[in-house]
Amino acid sequence: MTKQRILFDTDPGVDDALALLYLHRHPNIELLGITTVFGNASISVTTRNARFLAEAWGIKAPVHAGASVPLNWSGAPHPYPVHVHGANGLGDYPIAQEAREEKDTAARFIVDTVRQNPRQVRLLAVGGLTNLARALEADPAIADLVQDVVVMGGAFEVPGNVSPVAEANIYADPKAADRVFAASWKVTAVPLNLTNRTVMTRQDLAAASEGADAAMQMVAALSQGYIDFYLQWGEAGMLVHDCSAAVYLTDPHLFATRSGSIIVLEDGPAAGMTVQRLGAASYSPNEWDQRPVQSVCVGGDAAGILARIYAVCRGSSAEPSPKS
Amino acid sequence: MTKQRILFDTDPGVDDALALLYLHRHPNIELLGITTVFGNASISVTTRNARFLAEAWGIKAPVHAGASVPLNWSGAPHPYPVHVHGANGLGDYPIAQEAREEKDTAARFIVDTVRQNPRQVRLLAVGGLTNLARALEADPAIADLVQDVVVMGGAFEVPGNVSPVAEANIYADPKAADRVFAASWKVTAVPLNLTNRTVMTRQDLAAASEGADAAMQMVAALSQGYIDFYLQWGEAGMLVHDCSAAVYLTDPHLFATRSGSIIVLEDGPAAGMTVQRLGAASYSPNEWDQRPVQSVCVGGDAAGILARIYAVCRGSSAEPSPKS
Repeated sequence: MTKQRILFDTDPGVDDALALLYLHRHPNIELLGITTVFGNASISVTTRNARFLAEAWGIKAPVHAGASVPLNWSGAPHPYPVHVHGANGLGDYPIAQEAREEKDTAARFIVDTVRQNPRQVRLLAVGGLTNLARALEADPAIADLVQDVVVMGGAFEVPGNVSPVAEANIYADPKAADRVFAASWKVTAVPLNLTNRTVMTRQDLAAASEGADAAMQMVAALSQGYIDFYLQWGEAGMLVHDCSAAVYLTDPHLFATRSGSIIVLEDGPAAGMTVQRLGAASYSPNEWDQRPVQSVCVGGDAAGILARIYAVCRGSSAEPSPKS
Repeated sequence: MTKQRILFDTDPGVDDALALLYLHRHPNIELLGITTVFGNASISVTTRNARFLAEAWGIKAPVHAGASVPLNWSGAPHPYPVHVHGANGLGDYPIAQEAREEKDTAARFIVDTVRQNPRQVRLLAVGGLTNLARALEADPAIADLVQDVVVMGGAFEVPGNVSPVAEANIYADPKAADRVFAASWKVTAVPLNLTNRTVMTRQDLAAASEGADAAMQMVAALSQGYIDFYLQWGEAGMLVHDCSAAVYLTDPHLFATRSGSIIVLEDGPAAGMTVQRLGAASYSPNEWDQRPVQSVCVGGDAAGILARIYAVCRGSSAEPSPKS
């Protein structure tokens, strides 16, 4: 069986760590590389974290650092969400390695990897979309050379998690996100509409990691502060945003998608808002007509998604779910 | 019983005509004045039409012409929707009077009328919101001197009728609409979410006007082209956008409202999109926090609304509905 070739763009990040373990453990996935982006912490911290996790779990895929700020950015970056992901971006799990300055090679690595594997690479992006936008800018032809793009991000007709209308990954770089949705590649967004329902309780995570190996134990340990954050937010457990998008790669039948062009609002009170064209009505010619149709996972089987995560991350997924 | 004192801002317009007849005929409404705005046709045409209808139906309230273009407008206006409301704005119903140049007195008249009737005036606006924004600009204190503002406009999480995301009245002047929703007066929007369901078929309108007086016959006659337009659009009949907002004044129990701050997007592909803050989550301080909470009629009893329109416009509403 041919494995899916995945490029993982990430800003670890607690739920990024779970997603990375899922990708690493899934028997049908070949992880071609990890690119990092600012977001849940600074670029030096998210890159350090990616290297730390890869080394701890024996992941051979190369790690390439990427963007430290959004496209066309001036001024201070948004504050990093230390109250969500901890001061070190991994729930303050002890990490010996220091974060260091990194050379920005992610966009180049994405372009090269796509070029070397034409129509075979799936890009999974679970942070801000700056690296993807810069790869597109460097080589627009990759839009027609990837297999597809899966993005954790957006809040469609539902409240955001960083503003009343914006989800954190899209808000991190609205301009980049707009370019990613506007490109001719096939994009599927896995937004809050779905991920708000993927609630992993402390109890369920404890049960899933009981008797599991060190990697799963580490994920459980570094997730505890993240769970605390969501309990304060009124949830019953942590929301596994990023790993839900990873499950979309392997088990799309667990997701309900909706088609329509997508724009991202860049400025003002609606900055970072994602809007999908709904309905089939036609109008006077307008900017929407130029946009490709993309997909949004507006719903899905949250319990089924969580079950896949537990099974794969524990390493007990020898039998992938029937339709995957 | 004290009658409601209504100022009617309108751009007749076929469904505006029905709304005007409703206001005129309703026993609990005192129409203090009619202000006109560009939209369904040019300002000179909508004003001519308002005068024509007022004269035909014996309406004593004064007619004041208002804005001919949106706020801060440069360049050509949006094209007028002659395919919807006819070349003369009233479904090409024969009108002897010529449209003429008009003096713009609407904003001043709104201010004066509100000042003369403190906390007693309800503003019903069923066109673009330029006149209301200019009245606010001329005298910001009116925001606290009106009873409330009811607006036909907006499309909340549903497709628009002039773009994939915008409703015509809001799209006519997004900046003005944003100012109206941002002011401290109480605003209730009656958007497409509801009015798309108020479908008046040709047969029902014929039945309602059979045996009715000349005013109702005129409304039926001038609505025929408007019905044709909606039949082409795939509806079973015409949508009575404006008159639904008039019914909200008298029969609010027929409407389901939702509370939350509202913004209007001014530029780009989302120009004219209305966004309401949903949910009770709190975020880092943001521009939304400065906005007053307004109401949106996201649903309601469409059949009940149509029944009220038929009863009132036929003049058979001696018994207003129990809760009105």
